[in-house]
Amino acid sequence: MNASKRIFLAEVREQPAALLTLLEHLDDFVTVGRACAERKPTAVRLVGHGSSDAAASYGVYAFGLLPGWTALRDSISLSVYYGADLDYSSSVVVALSQSGRTPDVVTYVERARERGALTVALTNDPGSELASRAELTLPLAAGEERSVAASKTFFNQLAALALLAGAAAGREEEIWDGLRRTAVVLADAIPELEAAVAPIATAFAYVGRMYVIGRGYELATAREIALKLTETCRVAAEPLTSTDLAHGPIAALDSMFPVWTIASHDPSLPALVEAAARVRAAGATLVASGSAAGEIEGAEWRLPVPAAPLPLLSPLLSVVPGQLFAAALAEAKGFDPDRPERLTKVTLAQ
Amino acid sequence: MNASKRIFLAEVREQPAALLTLLEHLDDFVTVGRACAERKPTAVRLVGHGSSDAAASYGVYAFGLLPGWTALRDSISLSVYYGADLDYSSSVVVALSQSGRTPDVVTYVERARERGALTVALTNDPGSELASRAELTLPLAAGEERSVAASKTFFNQLAALALLAGAAAGREEEIWDGLRRTAVVLADAIPELEAAVAPIATAFAYVGRMYVIGRGYELATAREIALKLTETCRVAAEPLTSTDLAHGPIAALDSMFPVWTIASHDPSLPALVEAAARVRAAGATLVASGSAAGEIEGAEWRLPVPAAPLPLLSPLLSVVPGQLFAAALAEAKGFDPDRPERLTKVTLAQ
Repeated sequence: MNASKRIFLAEVREQPAALLTLLEHLDDFVTVGRACAERKPTAVRLVGHGSSDAAASYGVYAFGLLPGWTALRDSISLSVYYGADLDYSSSVVVALSQSGRTPDVVTYVERARERGALTVALTNDPGSELASRAELTLPLAAGEERSVAASKTFFNQLAALALLAGAAAGREEEIWDGLRRTAVVLADAIPELEAAVAPIATAFAYVGRMYVIGRGYELATAREIALKLTETCRVAAEPLTSTDLAHGPIAALDSMFPVWTIASHDPSLPALVEAAARVRAAGATLVASGSAAGEIEGAEWRLPVPAAPLPLLSPLLSVVPGQLFAAALAEAKGFDPDRPERLTKVTLAQ
Repeated sequence: MNASKRIFLAEVREQPAALLTLLEHLDDFVTVGRACAERKPTAVRLVGHGSSDAAASYGVYAFGLLPGWTALRDSISLSVYYGADLDYSSSVVVALSQSGRTPDVVTYVERARERGALTVALTNDPGSELASRAELTLPLAAGEERSVAASKTFFNQLAALALLAGAAAGREEEIWDGLRRTAVVLADAIPELEAAVAPIATAFAYVGRMYVIGRGYELATAREIALKLTETCRVAAEPLTSTDLAHGPIAALDSMFPVWTIASHDPSLPALVEAAARVRAAGATLVASGSAAGEIEGAEWRLPVPAAPLPLLSPLLSVVPGQLFAAALAEAKGFDPDRPERLTKVTLAQ
């Protein structure tokens, strides 16, 4: 790989700055958060594909824990393909698309809005088709993302969902301040994390299969890290909750099938610790990342991150070792992470 | 593998009979379906792990398309680990567990019931802890399942969800009759399908990675087939929607990374056809299953199934080639599908 083309890696490093830019838009989030709260929604419907869908997994927790609303990664096909006759009148829709051009997400928003939902577009292009179809638009403010593999747009999606959920709960100042401090902590941590992933990438150069394990809000992190490994390193990396692992996939592990665990200091930690013990007993190599990486016994590799200023914000730190590892592993395998095979920046798939 | 121990295969063959037994319990489903309808739920919350969670994916469509209710695979950790303060008073909970002993599913039901949800247990053991904690219980009536890898309990979960959703919509007779005819059609189809999977299993003996692609209600089928391949054949098999595939995973494919597609005659078929074309362009081996297997151009292997009596019931037919293939591939690889590595029939993981 030509070192001058390391766009993906450069964009990973830009994340703290991208977050600080997003935080300049607090007023927009307060306006939209209040509008959502006025709707008194019975459901927040999150839609998106790829990294945007991984971010939606985080939104389930952000809305569940801040305003106490039920949020779901809604089925796009149910309304767009099957024409289900659902009641959206007490729903808020949050549509996630970096480009704002994902076809079925645009169609979903049109249908949900016609049926009475309050529709919010969260996109890096406020002039996009998605933004024009939604009633309200929030900026991702990540700056242009040139690498095909997303990084800073995912990162700002997490932050934006936390900020929107915080504003819906009237707690925007606390979340805003936590995010600001997260940007500072992360900027300090990146150089050391870059150094720490390099030897793991060398050791993993011939790995073709991995599981990435998280639980609770770290499931979003697991989904995004698995997607990075899949698209930039051509590893069959599957995200699983710690409980999913025990209900089947544990059977497939062996010494050439490593498991990446994301362990944070939160109430799901005991489930992660138990899952890691199962992995170890299966003879698989274990990577422990996250703020509680030190709690995972028997890990061959550890990538601890600092504790987040607020527990709910931990995915913004936890995801970064995975992004950096994907960049390093792609290089070790001789792939160009900026231009994965058969992918384009805007996916127009049905 | 000792042929006398082919319990998993025997239980796959038993599925039509298990379904007919379930259909004897129509009255129970009508009673519970009416109770759900009286609640006028704003959300049907489906919870379960492993195969039960795959069945929950089907429930999203069954409730969305029959009574027109929003159903979601709810986050268990949000309430059980994080103590989220959610309003369950207008929710119906359908808790899925073959054994009725899955710890966090039991805890979830307790909390949701305390907070006002109408709780329904769907279990193969009506004397289980789960049944005792839920307000209402529906039988799976699959008979004892002795193989660690589930088959007929998953199959009857699909049927039970369709029947419950049908009863909630006052359409139980139509669904009941469709299911009865499905049992007949499937019983006729199984011998030919068993013969058809054998040569594919031989060709796939050294495969270690696969994707299983479905969309809409066939996503549930994709999830269950991927889980069978993972636990009985130790293949890293990941379920994806056709759209997920285009948003990243397509990059990882090569000639030793085959893709199993589930194509049915329904409105999501064009998305499947498009995804299959991407797979072919990537040089990966393509298996086409489902009632519309003939529509997938360039597939090296085809496993067509008969059309279902009602489109929504197609997963009950689509899943069977995958189950039979898993049994045959396990044998080709020298594994015992009845006793996967490190798994037990009842999973008591956190």
